[in-house]
Amino acid sequence: MLLEADWFTEASDEQGLGFSLKVKEKLHDERSDFQRIEIYATETFGHLMVIDGFVMLTQRDNFLYHEMMTHPALLSHGQVRDVAIIGGGDCGSLREVCRHPGVQSATQIEIDERVTRLAEDYFPELCSANDDPRATLLFDDGIAWMKNRADASLDLIIVDSTDPIGPAEGLFNKAFYQQCFRALRAGGLLVQQSESPLLHGKLIGDMHAAMQSAGFPVTRLLCFPQPVYPSGWWSATLAQRSEGPLAVPEDCPLDTLYYTPAIHAGALNVPPFLQKALDQAGAR
Amino acid sequence: MLLEADWFTEASDEQGLGFSLKVKEKLHDERSDFQRIEIYATETFGHLMVIDGFVMLTQRDNFLYHEMMTHPALLSHGQVRDVAIIGGGDCGSLREVCRHPGVQSATQIEIDERVTRLAEDYFPELCSANDDPRATLLFDDGIAWMKNRADASLDLIIVDSTDPIGPAEGLFNKAFYQQCFRALRAGGLLVQQSESPLLHGKLIGDMHAAMQSAGFPVTRLLCFPQPVYPSGWWSATLAQRSEGPLAVPEDCPLDTLYYTPAIHAGALNVPPFLQKALDQAGAR
Repeated sequence: MLLEADWFTEASDEQGLGFSLKVKEKLHDERSDFQRIEIYATETFGHLMVIDGFVMLTQRDNFLYHEMMTHPALLSHGQVRDVAIIGGGDCGSLREVCRHPGVQSATQIEIDERVTRLAEDYFPELCSANDDPRATLLFDDGIAWMKNRADASLDLIIVDSTDPIGPAEGLFNKAFYQQCFRALRAGGLLVQQSESPLLHGKLIGDMHAAMQSAGFPVTRLLCFPQPVYPSGWWSATLAQRSEGPLAVPEDCPLDTLYYTPAIHAGALNVPPFLQKALDQAGAR
Repeated sequence: MLLEADWFTEASDEQGLGFSLKVKEKLHDERSDFQRIEIYATETFGHLMVIDGFVMLTQRDNFLYHEMMTHPALLSHGQVRDVAIIGGGDCGSLREVCRHPGVQSATQIEIDERVTRLAEDYFPELCSANDDPRATLLFDDGIAWMKNRADASLDLIIVDSTDPIGPAEGLFNKAFYQQCFRALRAGGLLVQQSESPLLHGKLIGDMHAAMQSAGFPVTRLLCFPQPVYPSGWWSATLAQRSEGPLAVPEDCPLDTLYYTPAIHAGALNVPPFLQKALDQAGAR
């Protein structure tokens, strides 16, 4: 049995799964206007941020998620100028986006300013692009922001949100995807975190079907390891505004820890057991 | 806090990590001549086997491990006739091996007969090849067995063992790899489970270096998800008896849940952070 004083545990009765990290101490605990946010110093994963009891990220392994949420889309598109990040309050996706010199604007719309302020305190390495002149940090409702965004004014939308319960629920449906579709330029891309390939096959299938019904002609799944999320295996879904195959780059101009073009190509292969879930949802 | 009556938890103070599965009931608990073996019925992962407190496998997700420990090697080699499985007492690797019609003999050398007997009771679907006329189940010391095996008499050796502590320790060193090298035919392959890419970079590097120093001219790492193992991300190491590139097959003649040739190709790409660990160990 793991003692509460020594370990942080995220457990789901529904999934029948638990995950624990050994903690040195709790560094912060608050209830913001939107959610409860805790920060721990762990023994082996650096700092840990927890929102409403769910692991958001650790210093040790967030590179997997942040690299796979950004570089495949940016390098496949090849000419991304204007980016919106919905959620992403820890600023790690913003940092990776700003490493691409062609990007002219990156707007992060995080509903809870406290997430970003705590990231600045406890994950400063992720916030290194917050002062980039191309970056704009807004603290607002991403759904409303997208509704008001001009037509065809973005090349890439990254939905880097919590799970589809609570504040993020409205980011996982056709109405939101229609607004994204409208706000994207031709050739534009939408990337959204899409939960665990093992645990959430139905949700992934439903997401793909909803994106397609909102007008996106092609959706692709990218799978990658993410040890601190349930099952240790995670995914991003990439929706294309225009028809046509999406190139995997021949090389990567950035120093990365996980991403390579070959890993990018590999991540696009959907295992047969998961393809069944996509087929069952009526997704192409 | 997760109550001991409701959850099985594997925790490592050294790794600072814990993993829990919700259990319906404990089905079996014994101390064999070699180790403690427990079987649980979990809420969402089917049956669970635990040895000395470490998760060995569940019914829900073992397909990831067993497919990746077998099909990449068998399909890359293309003409495997004689296979030895060291460990592998749950018989899942044996089952996957026997799905390849070219295989003429598959010998499983598991030190602890109780593991196999319990697999027959609680994981019967993994034991469906135990009566295959090509299969031989031995209950013996795999290290000694390999030492006595005739020169150049095997095409594939699969080391499907527990972690490199306890009974399996002697399966992770140069002396054992030299015996494997000797027992393999030209073009033969050695595959060994090689722990977590995130957690065990040094061990992986040391394994590759030891295999190379034992004579294997090429070693390759294959990474794949394995939700019930620490970090949810696991690897197999593939060592070639002969020089030369190893082909990834163009198609797979078997129905699989995870394995495809494209996933096989993707799994061979080592992420940059891990390549550093290989380089530091002096592995090519």
